[in-house]
Amino acid sequence: MVMKQLYHFQTANHIISGQNSIQSLAENLHLIGKDIQKALIITSPSLIRLGFVDEVKSQLSNKGIDSRTITGILPEPTVANIEEVYKDPANENYDVFIGLGGGSVLDATKILSILKTNDKSVHELLEPDVIERPGIPTILIPSTSGTGSEVTPNAIVTIPDEELKIGIVSKYFLPDLVFIDPVLTLELPAAITAATGMDAFTHSLESFISNKANPISDTYALDSIRLISSSIVEAYHNGASIAARGKMIIGSMYGGMALTSAGTAAVHALAYPLGGKFNITHGVANSMLLPHVMAFNMDAITGRLSRVAEAMGISEAGDSENAAAERVVSQINKWTKELDIPQNLKKYGVEEIDLQDLAEAAAKVTRLLNNNPKTLSVEDIKNIYRKLLP
Amino acid sequence: MVMKQLYHFQTANHIISGQNSIQSLAENLHLIGKDIQKALIITSPSLIRLGFVDEVKSQLSNKGIDSRTITGILPEPTVANIEEVYKDPANENYDVFIGLGGGSVLDATKILSILKTNDKSVHELLEPDVIERPGIPTILIPSTSGTGSEVTPNAIVTIPDEELKIGIVSKYFLPDLVFIDPVLTLELPAAITAATGMDAFTHSLESFISNKANPISDTYALDSIRLISSSIVEAYHNGASIAARGKMIIGSMYGGMALTSAGTAAVHALAYPLGGKFNITHGVANSMLLPHVMAFNMDAITGRLSRVAEAMGISEAGDSENAAAERVVSQINKWTKELDIPQNLKKYGVEEIDLQDLAEAAAKVTRLLNNNPKTLSVEDIKNIYRKLLP
Ligand SMILES: NC(=O)c1ccc[n+]([C@@H]2O[C@H](COP(=O)([O-])OP(=O)(O)OC[C@H]3O[C@@H](n4cnc5c(N)ncnc54)[C@H](O)[C@@H]3O)[C@@H](O)[C@H]2O)c1
Ligand SMILES: NC(=O)c1ccc[n+]([C@@H]2O[C@H](COP(=O)([O-])OP(=O)(O)OC[C@H]3O[C@@H](n4cnc5c(N)ncnc54)[C@H](O)[C@@H]3O)[C@@H](O)[C@H]2O)c1
Ligand SMILES: [Fe+2]
Ligand SMILES: [Fe+2]
Repeated sequence: MVMKQLYHFQTANHIISGQNSIQSLAENLHLIGKDIQKALIITSPSLIRLGFVDEVKSQLSNKGIDSRTITGILPEPTVANIEEVYKDPANENYDVFIGLGGGSVLDATKILSILKTNDKSVHELLEPDVIERPGIPTILIPSTSGTGSEVTPNAIVTIPDEELKIGIVSKYFLPDLVFIDPVLTLELPAAITAATGMDAFTHSLESFISNKANPISDTYALDSIRLISSSIVEAYHNGASIAARGKMIIGSMYGGMALTSAGTAAVHALAYPLGGKFNITHGVANSMLLPHVMAFNMDAITGRLSRVAEAMGISEAGDSENAAAERVVSQINKWTKELDIPQNLKKYGVEEIDLQDLAEAAAKVTRLLNNNPKTLSVEDIKNIYRKLLP
Repeated sequence: MVMKQLYHFQTANHIISGQNSIQSLAENLHLIGKDIQKALIITSPSLIRLGFVDEVKSQLSNKGIDSRTITGILPEPTVANIEEVYKDPANENYDVFIGLGGGSVLDATKILSILKTNDKSVHELLEPDVIERPGIPTILIPSTSGTGSEVTPNAIVTIPDEELKIGIVSKYFLPDLVFIDPVLTLELPAAITAATGMDAFTHSLESFISNKANPISDTYALDSIRLISSSIVEAYHNGASIAARGKMIIGSMYGGMALTSAGTAAVHALAYPLGGKFNITHGVANSMLLPHVMAFNMDAITGRLSRVAEAMGISEAGDSENAAAERVVSQINKWTKELDIPQNLKKYGVEEIDLQDLAEAAAKVTRLLNNNPKTLSVEDIKNIYRKLLP
């Protein structure tokens, strides 16, 4: 616990959590501390279909606040997609942006807010440290238990031309107000529950073993691991379980808090090119890679894993460090089967001849690879991808 | 884990932690996002003597930032004391207030910042919800591991005329930037280490058993309990232990995060009149009361205490709920002896005839008593105070 390095923690300004907490959206608007007359709701068709957008709209209109709903943001949005939504003149002159959806919607909401006040294109935001001032106020409401985007200073965009995904980082991406409401996730399809849930688990596990791990990120990482481990299988098989969904959505938020301070590592670095080149969604790419990257990292992190085993609820009295670490890896493998996580890149069109390019692209994601407890050569990365070409 | 009520979490904007983190103060000023030319450092003579104020001043001056240091805030400041410091014309026109000290200095810094932008006297702030806008930017740097004030929206003032202490609450009290540096606490005297440390422990324990406890506050409360339990005795006997001080200062911060969402309860309610009427410092009053209020609460919280026992590292396999709860109470009693916590109100001038007034004053602190898992009559409160009149 002696602290030698410095660690930075930051999060959303206000977080309201609890079952049906979105029903208190309008009454909590004052927390933003600014006058709000017009709201732009950025969401996806599924959330409209489930009735949550109407819920928000009617609360706003009861307060005399005009709102408009847009669904133009696509999953894993590209630079061009965000530019296009931004340029639509109908989206001008709003006092607050309300992002209601998965990580794709939340990340896009953060970027749209910043574009309004910083004289930059999305492309220009890809350079480090170019965001100079706060955006217009944002409210973020996650509808997946995965990215933790509601509490991170990150937003990830896809760049099809370069077959890449890039993470933009700015303190101004942190929202003013967040609602953590598990009710929104009750009808999240099982496959998305599994993939996004394993993404959240990966955030916490990678943060915990990160070279930048620290006493504060460890708190969030371990509690996230505890919450997700005790609910992911239940949430997958019995999506209507509010108890399981409640644990998952807080576990996912803690994963975001952990990664904000400690960073993710090799799983995420290797996932980016799978998203950029083969459109494999973020959660699926991460959850496919996790067991194999963990097996690779194993000898460098054995000592760290006994606390993980404990948080996962799988440690036994008298376990050696090795025994505890093996329990962690075998539990992840068990989940991979139990949650039907795909384990074959071929069905996404990846062939052996693609591995060199993929590995070279992943090797460039040094922002994340630097956090990994073990160095990966291009050859190591290829070998990991190859495990998914059976 | 089913969440029925709503819970609000908020904290400081940016938290930089780690050994010697105050050495990075100047380089992190950009996180405030405003131009800073002149800084007012609010501190206490002990921090000047220990050299920390010079450390901060020289960093600022290297950046071309003028600073002035004031030490006029007294421990457990009164309304009049804060008004007086505020009215000193020499304290005008600063771009940031840097509070470097214990809870007394931090609370006063928050209030001074708000006074600058809200057209109100300190007396007027005692009414609920009168703070309408953000203050000038604040940086808070705790030098005790106790109040957690650096991450709470609370500031506590003493009102000698009414023999009272009052907590003012506003989201605008949350600071822009916090440094958590255990090095500052290495020379904190043993008695203050014990009293403030037990105050921090009380924040977490009261938050955990509070009627407003929730999944998020529980995370902070339990990790705070874990950190403090594993370091308070070491910090008391061996103040120079950076490992113990590191755990204490993060544990204290987590206590602040827990109480921000869940609130403190009867220990704090009963401590206020001891401060207001008999000048017993906050940490001492709380640490004296803790074992007796816990004994009173016991039957209502037995079920909650097994997780506390676990976090304290004192649970044993096969413990019944009762056994675990008893371990918690007996550990608190053990600490009371080991840390030489005073257990006699007489030496502070309290007599049997004072108990009625004290109890009536405590009974008025409904904001905190409402959080207590068991209702306290005036008679119950008197009986608790009486335990400290041996
Ligand atoms: N900002 C960060 O810190 C961070 C971290 C990790 C990933 N990401 C990014 O987030 C994006 C992925 O987000 P995601 O994994 O949440 O998926 P997503 O937002 O792309 O959503 C996946 C699908 O689920 C649907 N959906 C969402 N909520 C639903 C609900 N409640 N019920 C039914 N359907 C619902 C969406 O419409 C979409 O079709 C990627 O672009 C990824 O790179 C960001
Ligand atoms: N805002 C909140 O959420 C909150 C919570 C609990 C208590 N409080 C308030 O905080 C105040 C108490 O604060 P506290 O318990 O930190 O004590 P304190 O700030 O009054 O400090 C106690 C003494 O220790 C000295 N000191 C402080 N740091 C030192 C160091 N590093 N080395 C040597 N000496 C040092 C101080 O000068 C002072 O004499 C009370 O007014 C209490 O009501 C506020
Ligand atoms: Fe992720
Ligand atoms: Fe306290």
